[in-house]
Amino acid sequence: MITSRSNATIKAIRALRQRPERTRTGLMFAEGTQLVGEAIQNGMDVVQLIVSPDRVRSPFAREMIQTAIARGAEYIEVSPDVYDSLTESEGRQGLAAVIRQRWHHLDHIDPSDGRPWIAMNSVQYPGNLGTVMRTLDSVGGAGVMLLGNSTDPYDPATARASLGAVFSLKMVHADIDTFAAWKHRWNVHLAAADLGATVPYREAAYPSPTVLLMGAERDGLTPEQKALCDTMVYIPMVGRRDSLNVAVAASLILYEIFHQSRVPAR
Amino acid sequence: MITSRSNATIKAIRALRQRPERTRTGLMFAEGTQLVGEAIQNGMDVVQLIVSPDRVRSPFAREMIQTAIARGAEYIEVSPDVYDSLTESEGRQGLAAVIRQRWHHLDHIDPSDGRPWIAMNSVQYPGNLGTVMRTLDSVGGAGVMLLGNSTDPYDPATARASLGAVFSLKMVHADIDTFAAWKHRWNVHLAAADLGATVPYREAAYPSPTVLLMGAERDGLTPEQKALCDTMVYIPMVGRRDSLNVAVAASLILYEIFHQSRVPAR
Repeated sequence: MITSRSNATIKAIRALRQRPERTRTGLMFAEGTQLVGEAIQNGMDVVQLIVSPDRVRSPFAREMIQTAIARGAEYIEVSPDVYDSLTESEGRQGLAAVIRQRWHHLDHIDPSDGRPWIAMNSVQYPGNLGTVMRTLDSVGGAGVMLLGNSTDPYDPATARASLGAVFSLKMVHADIDTFAAWKHRWNVHLAAADLGATVPYREAAYPSPTVLLMGAERDGLTPEQKALCDTMVYIPMVGRRDSLNVAVAASLILYEIFHQSRVPAR
Repeated sequence: MITSRSNATIKAIRALRQRPERTRTGLMFAEGTQLVGEAIQNGMDVVQLIVSPDRVRSPFAREMIQTAIARGAEYIEVSPDVYDSLTESEGRQGLAAVIRQRWHHLDHIDPSDGRPWIAMNSVQYPGNLGTVMRTLDSVGGAGVMLLGNSTDPYDPATARASLGAVFSLKMVHADIDTFAAWKHRWNVHLAAADLGATVPYREAAYPSPTVLLMGAERDGLTPEQKALCDTMVYIPMVGRRDSLNVAVAASLILYEIFHQSRVPAR
């Protein structure tokens, strides 16, 4: 059992708080039974399990530990003090993991099953990205395409806000040229929310496969991105605010896409 | 100009970070031109303006300062260092304010203008409450009724997430008996989201005035609250998560209520 906070393995895990270190290693850190369980159940590559044994009580947590070990995860026991030094959240569930990030290249993405995707331009806040993932998962979406300078989906705060949807959805990074080529190759319907649009989001059609493109919290969409869109929609509002929270706006349109796919059009 | 972080006035303002102190004084602290501007434009009682003069450059900020002073706000100049000691957010806009909280008693709330309200049971996260306020404002909602042990709408994080909607919406605290009496007195339609409901949220009717009742992140609704409801609806989902983020769920239903009020029913 590791009892020192300055143990080299512990320091390496703690370094994963920093995005450059996550990018360099291709790893991420997840804390809590539910989140680690989602990773394992979705077949993520769990490199290390970090366990504070006295705190692990649920049969589900023990089953997840056994599954991960059987698949080759390194099992690391730590003292409660060392465990607490790893987590920034309030979580003290005694089960954490170092997990290999899973990225898909757009060239290998086949959208012909008709499930919706979301593409986000330069989304800044982990909570917003995680919340969008949670909604996308609820409507049976396939994955997230990150354009521009986006926050990291493998940031612990994003993964937490997603309730583990980050492990069940496909994650893709793409530049605008690759994205445009893919859109044309598959004849994907690209819908975007824009404050200047003239069609309310519930009056537009979203043929499958649809990708919903959302601008960032502040910057919206680039001209190149707008030029690619098949539909631009707006969300009606009567209040004094400029716009809805980006995760709320994305969720409203995703649920309209979902609704149209389930209910025949009028 | 105050240049010491340990000045008594500065310490009193900094103490407003703590909820008990906000409750004791009935005050709150807001930082940033946009948020302070919303407070002033919505006629909030600004007790103190805290200004770091070199940072205030926009004509709008200067206009807001003049307006607040004309209404009786105390004007306090502080050094950049003192200003930064007051703010927990990244904001360094040089304009902050101590504002008197504004609470309405349910006995004085007349819902007969038909605008929707939201009632939330024991909402925990400031970001969720603030995001719900932002959506409610977008659909022309009237205000928020906080039931149970709710997070503080005058928490700086809530106010920030609301983009200032906390100042344009009415804020009400109520216990369940007062709430029940008010509902019956005004014949309000009470709709609630519940995982066990049998009516999808887009197939229910929401006659005016409607109050949308949302459960907390973890606890949902109490039996007493459920017994009061006229309609219980659910939000369809196909993913593996248990439920949507509470602010997203509230936003989906609020937009359905808004939609029905604008578009004649089929």
